[in-house]
Amino acid sequence: MTARAIHHVGVVVEDLDPVVETYERLLGGQLELRRTVEALGIEAAVIRFGDDRVELIAPLGDDSPLAGFLESRGPGLHHVAYEVGDVRGTLARLKEQGVELVDEEPRIGIFGHEIAFVHPDSVHGVLTEVVAGG
Amino acid sequence: MTARAIHHVGVVVEDLDPVVETYERLLGGQLELRRTVEALGIEAAVIRFGDDRVELIAPLGDDSPLAGFLESRGPGLHHVAYEVGDVRGTLARLKEQGVELVDEEPRIGIFGHEIAFVHPDSVHGVLTEVVAGG
Repeated sequence: MTARAIHHVGVVVEDLDPVVETYERLLGGQLELRRTVEALGIEAAVIRFGDDRVELIAPLGDDSPLAGFLESRGPGLHHVAYEVGDVRGTLARLKEQGVELVDEEPRIGIFGHEIAFVHPDSVHGVLTEVVAGG
Repeated sequence: MTARAIHHVGVVVEDLDPVVETYERLLGGQLELRRTVEALGIEAAVIRFGDDRVELIAPLGDDSPLAGFLESRGPGLHHVAYEVGDVRGTLARLKEQGVELVDEEPRIGIFGHEIAFVHPDSVHGVLTEVVAGG
């Protein structure tokens, strides 16, 4: 695959409001969108810096996969997402290369585009997302 | 301060060569530079994706601050760096706002530009770097 760009950096937080405020006030970012995705068990806010984005994600409840992340590691960096032309084709090519996928099929992310996660064991410890380009 | 863009995402690795190969082969990134900085105790490689960058950093020896990070957390995401117009002025404004700084004075990073780190406790668990725009 060829990633055209980094689409966003994903950061896990406990509670969105104070973190959005920090990214706006300290770093001068601008809130691009805020959305709750029950199916993913998350609430998210996206902060823009020019063409770049930080995606802040908070667990919706104790069942959310992010709740376990927060408990074991605390708030902080979670994943890097790359923009690709075609998520399904990318997954097929990665699988051919022996890459361990979290998502065998694309699902719809908070931007309304197809996304999929690649297991960190295949990317030297970094949870890696691919996102369909806008 | 106003960050214009995300300059790079920093990732700690044990050994640069296999990770550079993974980012080139799996993700289609292009090696932009590779440099050893004895003063920082690191060896670094920068991978480009369009206008975006992943900075892979490996400890030079057991004394490197990164050696402790690897021991406690393993390889993975380490920091996010934002491009600013003026690192010294940014540090002064952050300090006025009560932000905890790792570097009170700018130092020179692997790109040859002024950089400084902001303590993760002031950014909800994310080690944050500011880099002078090129």
